Amino acid sequence: MSKYCFGIDIGGTTVKCGLFDTEGNVLDKWEIKTRTEDNGKYIIPDVAAAIEGEIAKKGIDKADITGVGVGVPGPVDENGVVPTAVNLHWGRVELAADMTRILGITTKVGNDANVAALGEMWKGGGEGYKNLVMVTLGTGVGGGIILGEKILSGSHGAGGEIGHMPVEAPVDKPCNCGNTGCLEQVASATGIVYLANKKLEASDAPSVLRGNSVSAKSVFDAVKAGDPLACEVAEEFGKYLGTALASIAAVVDPQVIVIGGGVSKAGDVLLDVVKKHYMERAFSACRAAEFSLAKLGNDAGIFGAARMVLE
Amino acid sequence: MSKYCFGIDIGGTTVKCGLFDTEGNVLDKWEIKTRTEDNGKYIIPDVAAAIEGEIAKKGIDKADITGVGVGVPGPVDENGVVPTAVNLHWGRVELAADMTRILGITTKVGNDANVAALGEMWKGGGEGYKNLVMVTLGTGVGGGIILGEKILSGSHGAGGEIGHMPVEAPVDKPCNCGNTGCLEQVASATGIVYLANKKLEASDAPSVLRGNSVSAKSVFDAVKAGDPLACEVAEEFGKYLGTALASIAAVVDPQVIVIGGGVSKAGDVLLDVVKKHYMERAFSACRAAEFSLAKLGNDAGIFGAARMVLE
Repeated sequence: MSKYCFGIDIGGTTVKCGLFDTEGNVLDKWEIKTRTEDNGKYIIPDVAAAIEGEIAKKGIDKADITGVGVGVPGPVDENGVVPTAVNLHWGRVELAADMTRILGITTKVGNDANVAALGEMWKGGGEGYKNLVMVTLGTGVGGGIILGEKILSGSHGAGGEIGHMPVEAPVDKPCNCGNTGCLEQVASATGIVYLANKKLEASDAPSVLRGNSVSAKSVFDAVKAGDPLACEVAEEFGKYLGTALASIAAVVDPQVIVIGGGVSKAGDVLLDVVKKHYMERAFSACRAAEFSLAKLGNDAGIFGAARMVLE
Repeated sequence: MSKYCFGIDIGGTTVKCGLFDTEGNVLDKWEIKTRTEDNGKYIIPDVAAAIEGEIAKKGIDKADITGVGVGVPGPVDENGVVPTAVNLHWGRVELAADMTRILGITTKVGNDANVAALGEMWKGGGEGYKNLVMVTLGTGVGGGIILGEKILSGSHGAGGEIGHMPVEAPVDKPCNCGNTGCLEQVASATGIVYLANKKLEASDAPSVLRGNSVSAKSVFDAVKAGDPLACEVAEEFGKYLGTALASIAAVVDPQVIVIGGGVSKAGDVLLDVVKKHYMERAFSACRAAEFSLAKLGNDAGIFGAARMVLE
């Protein structure tokens, strides 16, 4: 019987690695550097060597390993092929096939945001649920949809790309994706700063944010201190994200909506304002969805990657 | 080996019935009246009798029947239980269990809009695809999402309820669902009439629509004749629906978007205006999605119901 699985989260700077038992307990956790030089050609051998090293160190029989799951920052097709991953300097890489061949262990591959959502479903803010929407509020807005305990990858690797849902917001410059008026432009850390600066410029209303460098954290700290202008910014952010989540719910009807990423450290004050606007616009049956904060932080990727191979 | 399956589409007025082979050929097709009196208690026996009658008439061996699929106008849980179906005068009905017991044939149950989407995937506008979004533009806006050839039912029976996605539209009265500003209020036949009347009232601009009773058909007929005011109405409709579809695509990333219902009879002129606005707002990878018109009309339900049992 299988006892072990590996969860690997390849990022642009480091590769996070985890050895798990099939119950989801972390047996070991470490990082290696992501060597992106020469079109990222060392990444696969480096990851394989890290896994082989761990197998040797722990004296594990390969027959006891269910598989290796890998999350990558880019689209992934249903055969585990990565068409391109800019942050890894990769062109087309047959990642699942290559790793399976090199290691002699079945390898599954997923997009990192989707994999993180699966991790939160397994052992994080969505534990106990099968149908989940995860939103990651960082520099951008990432997303992952889990239905029936499986990742929704999409037909063109764009499943759960909720940061690029169109929103009706007064945004005056294009998003990194090329469109103008994406959710990410008003609901990410960067987006919250954009909304705050716009509001600061539009009036002389007093605010603790005035005269200081504004960040998503300073905005939500000011909200907690009762700053009226910061509260207006939070309301606007909450309206955009809450309404987008109501749209998502009318499509996939999740049991739980998990909010993670650096911005989510604001905690309940953030959850409350998003949920308030969600409740105003969500279809009646979808108002039963739970809201929770992500719990696994940067480890969501290795948990989700490991969980992928247990399907 | 199984040779046959039944597809049943229970509506508020008639029950459509189809006998199919497992390749999707219609072997027989008929209708019975939906008897909604006495809390709809005759509906199940009537449907069962219709199927038994057909089996007897055709001399079919029950062992050659894969199953019976049933679409109903209401939410359906994963066990084939209908919590309530207003148009059938039903409270909670354990439809799949009851039908399976009465007929001695495995019965599967789905929401009618979702089932119709599966029908269009099998033999209609989405044939050859596995991941599909279907929008039905009738009195309301219905929807169905198919992922990996399976219906997305959702956690509370609200999967694919895209008619109740929030839109930023100047709507001044509540939707039937209780919210204000649902897609259905501006993208259904009723919604198009609403948009047209608003535009007619707002100016004295000449239009063939003026002085006549406005319908979705008359609006799109006027668009085909080059009427400028009607074209503005179509643009507005296209913006709401195209943007909503761009949102949906960023979530589920379909291969094909199928548009059906009475309003879709306008044909390419409708498809073009929706697609134009979709392309403006969709995430780059999602712009590869195909657009097509539904092909099965009122038969989509029986096709989809039959297809459900072939999973």
